[in-house]
Amino acid sequence: MNTLPAIPSIADAALAARLQSLIDHKTKPLGSLGRLEALAVRIGLILGSEAPELHAPQVLVCAADHGLAARGVSAFPSDVTWQMVHNFVTGGAAVSVLARQHGLGLTVVDCGVRHDFAPYPGLVVRKIAPGTQDASAGPAMTAAQCAHAMANGREVVAALPGNALLLGEMGIGNTSSAALLLARLTDTDVADCAGPGTGLDAAGVARKVAVLRQALAANAAAREPLDALAALGGFEIATLVGAVLQAAAERRVIVVDGFITSAAVLVAARLAPAVLQRCVFSHQSQEPGHLRMLAALQAEPLLELGLRLGEGSGAALAWPLLASACAILREMASFESAGVAQRT
Amino acid sequence: MNTLPAIPSIADAALAARLQSLIDHKTKPLGSLGRLEALAVRIGLILGSEAPELHAPQVLVCAADHGLAARGVSAFPSDVTWQMVHNFVTGGAAVSVLARQHGLGLTVVDCGVRHDFAPYPGLVVRKIAPGTQDASAGPAMTAAQCAHAMANGREVVAALPGNALLLGEMGIGNTSSAALLLARLTDTDVADCAGPGTGLDAAGVARKVAVLRQALAANAAAREPLDALAALGGFEIATLVGAVLQAAAERRVIVVDGFITSAAVLVAARLAPAVLQRCVFSHQSQEPGHLRMLAALQAEPLLELGLRLGEGSGAALAWPLLASACAILREMASFESAGVAQRT
Repeated sequence: MNTLPAIPSIADAALAARLQSLIDHKTKPLGSLGRLEALAVRIGLILGSEAPELHAPQVLVCAADHGLAARGVSAFPSDVTWQMVHNFVTGGAAVSVLARQHGLGLTVVDCGVRHDFAPYPGLVVRKIAPGTQDASAGPAMTAAQCAHAMANGREVVAALPGNALLLGEMGIGNTSSAALLLARLTDTDVADCAGPGTGLDAAGVARKVAVLRQALAANAAAREPLDALAALGGFEIATLVGAVLQAAAERRVIVVDGFITSAAVLVAARLAPAVLQRCVFSHQSQEPGHLRMLAALQAEPLLELGLRLGEGSGAALAWPLLASACAILREMASFESAGVAQRT
Repeated sequence: MNTLPAIPSIADAALAARLQSLIDHKTKPLGSLGRLEALAVRIGLILGSEAPELHAPQVLVCAADHGLAARGVSAFPSDVTWQMVHNFVTGGAAVSVLARQHGLGLTVVDCGVRHDFAPYPGLVVRKIAPGTQDASAGPAMTAAQCAHAMANGREVVAALPGNALLLGEMGIGNTSSAALLLARLTDTDVADCAGPGTGLDAAGVARKVAVLRQALAANAAAREPLDALAALGGFEIATLVGAVLQAAAERRVIVVDGFITSAAVLVAARLAPAVLQRCVFSHQSQEPGHLRMLAALQAEPLLELGLRLGEGSGAALAWPLLASACAILREMASFESAGVAQRT
């Protein structure tokens, strides 16, 4: 499973018009459910249904370590990656709590964590290597490693039930990878892409930007999406790119979390633009580069709560809005069925 | 039940500090759950608990008709009020669908609808009169009617289970009442308070503003909160004011919906400022006056989805965020309990 799956356009003007007409005839002033209406249309188009129903939604948290972390680009030590993976699968992390609250399946993938895990329910080991190489000195991974991680992502998603995938990630140093991919793929100064991540101060961000400039210089030739992903990404991001492609090929609803999962979507969309038709952007993160990333993806996130945690926490928080959009389409009465007068 | 209940301040710096410390020790970067953290502190303070738990949440939809509607201030005819009440209790309205989705109780109060309803489960009749008088010609209601409606609201809430109240309303013409109360109580030009409501065009809004100026002139002496409520409000708004006061006195979490329920909170807060300590503002509506109303209340709404439906639909959509805030406080591991390293 290492070639790109076919991801055709799912644009369907006739279905979109039928969905909008159904919404317009619901017992409410025209347009009064605001962005929930566009969300309902989008989900209807993804699932190809005028009465879309989400079932067995799955949070996929991809985790890995980054060679770049040794250069001091994060406020936390690399060991936090494996410690948080343990926290995810034992139920104590934010995404664990939120997944429980909303009945979301939770699968954590060790894509390349620098730790050997004991077996745990919900933990899938697809480790490429114990962390990437230091991207400031050369490519973070080989092309073969990158392809392998993408294939892993595709396989993991293909084995998951349900018709919705919520993206999550963990990896100390991975806001650096996301910033590098954003800078390279959108031709933006990396200073405008990098931010405090888990909590760097201004001096820390300046040091991080200097390291990121070295990484871009060390990988100056990696300009195509797959080359950039291998040179500047992480194993969790590459696995997520594969997961996004597979979910898109299967017409699952893809719920994007914050800055890092958006970077995976950016790469996937450069490989197959119709991926974006299947995406719902859950929130605008407080990480400054995310706003730029969302603009590059022409995305309109649902929530703006100043989140900057990752893990899939923002996707899980937004999940009930997706379920509401479907319920409104399926369950609300029309003016005719309810015997309510239309406007004068 | 017609005097104001005692609503003492629930400010508690020690509990607030303990709540913040609990959140700060959760396994996540400091502050990374953004506004969800402040929400958790607020709910903890309202419920007086370091492990707050919301139970048996209730949506209260107050409905009534408005004499002002005869002056053409709405895009919909008055009959829609009773037709929508019917739709609420038979399960076809947006708020019915959302309440079902989230397991929220739904009580609809006929506070003064111009219609005689057959008995329905979930419909409570506390009708003051079949609609208010035309406020452009004099007071919408008498002081006695206003006090009666407030007492009704207090009684209805006192009989409801649970520790959270979500506010909703229905009443053709009630964006006019809300705009009048905002204009009068905050000394703002009513042109800056009125908007399209259910869907007036620009000419319709101009006509509405002209009618609202007449109402303000006809009730020029009604400047104190209760006088303004009687002169310019509606039976559903007065009932909501009583409901808010009772819920605040009982330290329930009050989830405010859009423009009209915010007007009820504005009146209640002028009577007892500590009401606002118990409020969570669910969303910023697209009705232009709501932004000004929220500023007057120093409120920071959770969602901004372009909603302008009312009914309690925005409050119901935001509900899962309140439940998430509590779950995070109660269920997330600390760095110590999870064995996760703190920042370097």
